[in-house]
Amino acid sequence: MEERKYIGIDIGGTTVKLAVLTKEGEMVHKWEIPTAKEEAGKTIVSDIAATINDTLNSLNVDKTMVEGIGAGAPGFIDQQTGYVYEAINIGWKEFDMGRALSESTGFPVWADNDANIAALGEKWLGAGKECDSMLAVTLGTGVGGGIIVNKKVINGANGTGGEIGHITVKTEGGHYCNCGRYGCLETETSATAIARKAAEVKASGTSSYLHTINEPTAKDVFEGYEKNDEGCIGIVSDVTDQLGLALANLAVSINPEKIVIGGGVSKAGESLLNPLKKAFESYALPRVNDVCDFSIAKLGNDAGVIGGAYLVKTKSEK
Amino acid sequence: MEERKYIGIDIGGTTVKLAVLTKEGEMVHKWEIPTAKEEAGKTIVSDIAATINDTLNSLNVDKTMVEGIGAGAPGFIDQQTGYVYEAINIGWKEFDMGRALSESTGFPVWADNDANIAALGEKWLGAGKECDSMLAVTLGTGVGGGIIVNKKVINGANGTGGEIGHITVKTEGGHYCNCGRYGCLETETSATAIARKAAEVKASGTSSYLHTINEPTAKDVFEGYEKNDEGCIGIVSDVTDQLGLALANLAVSINPEKIVIGGGVSKAGESLLNPLKKAFESYALPRVNDVCDFSIAKLGNDAGVIGGAYLVKTKSEK
Repeated sequence: MEERKYIGIDIGGTTVKLAVLTKEGEMVHKWEIPTAKEEAGKTIVSDIAATINDTLNSLNVDKTMVEGIGAGAPGFIDQQTGYVYEAINIGWKEFDMGRALSESTGFPVWADNDANIAALGEKWLGAGKECDSMLAVTLGTGVGGGIIVNKKVINGANGTGGEIGHITVKTEGGHYCNCGRYGCLETETSATAIARKAAEVKASGTSSYLHTINEPTAKDVFEGYEKNDEGCIGIVSDVTDQLGLALANLAVSINPEKIVIGGGVSKAGESLLNPLKKAFESYALPRVNDVCDFSIAKLGNDAGVIGGAYLVKTKSEK
Repeated sequence: MEERKYIGIDIGGTTVKLAVLTKEGEMVHKWEIPTAKEEAGKTIVSDIAATINDTLNSLNVDKTMVEGIGAGAPGFIDQQTGYVYEAINIGWKEFDMGRALSESTGFPVWADNDANIAALGEKWLGAGKECDSMLAVTLGTGVGGGIIVNKKVINGANGTGGEIGHITVKTEGGHYCNCGRYGCLETETSATAIARKAAEVKASGTSSYLHTINEPTAKDVFEGYEKNDEGCIGIVSDVTDQLGLALANLAVSINPEKIVIGGGVSKAGESLLNPLKKAFESYALPRVNDVCDFSIAKLGNDAGVIGGAYLVKTKSEK
């Protein structure tokens, strides 16, 4: 008998990633199309519907075997309805994406913020496997988060759940954030923030390693850290201290089994995790620290489509 | 036809409060017995079983109509099993309270930390009515918390969910906390902390109001605040700033519909809520602030027994 299929979609500013998975998490097929951002993204949904139709036909997947679509997009989204309050990078605002996608494909649609969907992916098949509760943190250009409790993502009252990038970590002297405030976690621990700190340290002349690099990135900072460069050690210590504090304060409230770190900065691996765990331990209630493991994300760019499929699985099995 | 009944129990260091409620939340009867803390609290469970048996008989409640017992106790408790990791005030440690209470009463038992149970009570019949997500904060001798998301309490990986009193708010110069660390929310915003700050301000001579009071309490500080005493205004501003920051950082992660403040300090009402809301607004992502209401808790000492009954309702209806 043919197995039920789940479609996961990860709608990004450049490409829309798609995948068909089975109930057991086997990836049947994955592919991507460009994101047509022209005219406030008005053809994106029909583009998606067309490519799904074509691909299911060429895969010979019987459409009655498709349980539904789980979609992630950057922004504020109502998980119950798939209504997009705002997705700036894509151009959508007050758009009933759930209904539009469902009507144009004929499948039920569930949706959530891309960071939340990625967290679900890591929970199902990645670093958070078997965890009922976890925090997923994405350290990239910005800082995103997905919080899973009792096996479900916290989507929140208006789709803002898990926006940990906007935790205030510096009440004084903080850097300006795109959200209009100052001293957010994002302005202190993202790849962008690390590069900014690297430029400052380089200018101060306290890093012989960064001194040789034209425009040092977060990657350079961790390489300098591994070579025991004092300036780079200072930056990593500062960043992991602030991230460790924010995560410990969240962990004492959520008491998760695992914290999974993804995004570009997470490629630093143990050079990031070791000082981060040390900072976390110094701020967390011992009982909270005892049960909380840290891990680097495992699914990379596939986390979103896998999480989308898992959203379908959890919603349709209820 | 006789209605199903739920029994709620709130086990405290001095008394055990009990109540029988109907499915619709009608309080059939409430009463209390002393907490027998002698010999590590070994007779507490049999005392509870005996008083429940006697009371159901005198109320003429048919025992087959009792759906179960929901119990709260101060400490770390596994919600799935009612296993008490530790309840210091009562003397229990590594005690399978859920099983003991179930065997001695013949009813199914669910349990959780007292702050979490109180949050459930406020959610069912109090200030958090109709809310799917809320933060309940208890400002008393210490600072407790209960977090409700998707209508359920966050109990956590080892019963530490909602321990917001141990959020670190001062990384430097913080006061010592019973947890062994420094600068916890509890050491900065509890009634105890406010009284400590009052003594300091009184000694500094900057408060004409506190100058006249022998051992000023949190209540005195809010009274001075209402009389525009400069020293008291400083304390309230300091306390609400730190509480507002901690709650805003939690709210940007959870995105709750409501924050409910209870405990002795909450009797200050608007004098607490107004500066707290202002501080919260300054630290919270605007979108999070937009949907988040503040309210003083409504159920007082009954929150625990009502929440216990609600725990039975939610668990048994599944």
